Amino acid sequence: MTTPDSSNPQHNPNAFASAEREAVYRAINERRDIRHFRPDPVDGDTLRRLLEAAHRAPSVGYMQPWRFLRIADPAVRAALHAHVADEQARTAEACGDRAAEVHRLKLEGIREAGELLVVALTDGRERYVLGRRTLPEMDLCSAACAIQNLWLAARAEGLGMGWVSLFDPDWLASRLELPEGGYPIAVLCLGHVERFYDRPMLETAGWDTRRPLEDLVFQDRWGAPCELAESPDARESVTGPGGTSGRGPA
Amino acid sequence: MTTPDSSNPQHNPNAFASAEREAVYRAINERRDIRHFRPDPVDGDTLRRLLEAAHRAPSVGYMQPWRFLRIADPAVRAALHAHVADEQARTAEACGDRAAEVHRLKLEGIREAGELLVVALTDGRERYVLGRRTLPEMDLCSAACAIQNLWLAARAEGLGMGWVSLFDPDWLASRLELPEGGYPIAVLCLGHVERFYDRPMLETAGWDTRRPLEDLVFQDRWGAPCELAESPDARESVTGPGGTSGRGPA
Repeated sequence: MTTPDSSNPQHNPNAFASAEREAVYRAINERRDIRHFRPDPVDGDTLRRLLEAAHRAPSVGYMQPWRFLRIADPAVRAALHAHVADEQARTAEACGDRAAEVHRLKLEGIREAGELLVVALTDGRERYVLGRRTLPEMDLCSAACAIQNLWLAARAEGLGMGWVSLFDPDWLASRLELPEGGYPIAVLCLGHVERFYDRPMLETAGWDTRRPLEDLVFQDRWGAPCELAESPDARESVTGPGGTSGRGPA
Repeated sequence: MTTPDSSNPQHNPNAFASAEREAVYRAINERRDIRHFRPDPVDGDTLRRLLEAAHRAPSVGYMQPWRFLRIADPAVRAALHAHVADEQARTAEACGDRAAEVHRLKLEGIREAGELLVVALTDGRERYVLGRRTLPEMDLCSAACAIQNLWLAARAEGLGMGWVSLFDPDWLASRLELPEGGYPIAVLCLGHVERFYDRPMLETAGWDTRRPLEDLVFQDRWGAPCELAESPDARESVTGPGGTSGRGPA
């Protein structure tokens, strides 16, 4: 059924060379949600490359629903910062016994980042049915894929990015004069950084921990374990000659 | 304010080396929504790397809302294929005067792909408020970013992937025994391919065309042009000494 060539990526003619593959995984692994920026401006050609990368995302029915607003006016940036600060306070209150923690978290870098972008879904989306008849929210997924492209390309360019969702979409739509049906989904802070965080900032801050992969992957039905996703230690201990039946550390 | 070092990616100490950057852009540019697969199985270690790449995605409030179901049971795969075929027919009817076109499109490779995965949002999401008070759909965005990570890593590994959204989420949730609140967002066909399409298949099939970047990028308010996004020809014709004021070809 299969040949060694097809299952070994080294011999798959469609696979990238080893160093290229490692670069893609490096971008995925070292991308972070950044909230600390240096104020240096972002080079215009670089920003254009990042927007082109976003525009190369997959989209449901090829609808390309993403729209980008580059915020160049300092007054708009200041208004956005004030609005987001208010929403962080409201979110803190909504978080009950973790309110004090939320107040303390740095969740955005709107004032410092060299570039500020707003991403919105376009108006007129109801005309697009292919792939959306039963799941109309697929256009939102397409736009999120575009943002992830931008994020990974920015990491490769040595630029940090943060996705801020602490805003009232109706307020932002009105402030940026979006047409009826247009819908903002992200405020993106983009810019130079001193350094990239080693780990996600919310992990370092003690907000939450990374789940082991085996808790997230099932087989054929919800909750049924998938051996493939077990930690290598656990897999070895089950399949190896001298292993125990217990799970290794996650 | 800025130094040449900080705006030139060659001199940004946080930037990847040139060849690494090109590899990341290559993955972004050559990723395709694939519907034609060879039946060869996907190597287990490779699949695990892809799932790890997905799990490295950003998530709102670090909630890691993504869950993956690996479909190994041929009966589940067959049921999924039949369901999706029905939905394609319903979608075609909903597309009115383009119904015949939709009937003819190949929109999935469920029977052929070496691996079939379902991605779902976890249950209990209402407990997560950070970044979702005003935009509860942000968890869907996080899961879409995870799928995009998986997609780009698969391209680097030489594996094709297609995101199928032609299904009734309630039917699929019930078929896979998702708990109350769990919500399926993607059927992913993943596997070896003869070749990657040169262009998006829906473009080649004449379904739609790629929009010029300048139609998608505004400045400070909706509809206001952003010079940075204009085609290089247009920018030159505006700013160059002997240029005309017209826009170059997109």
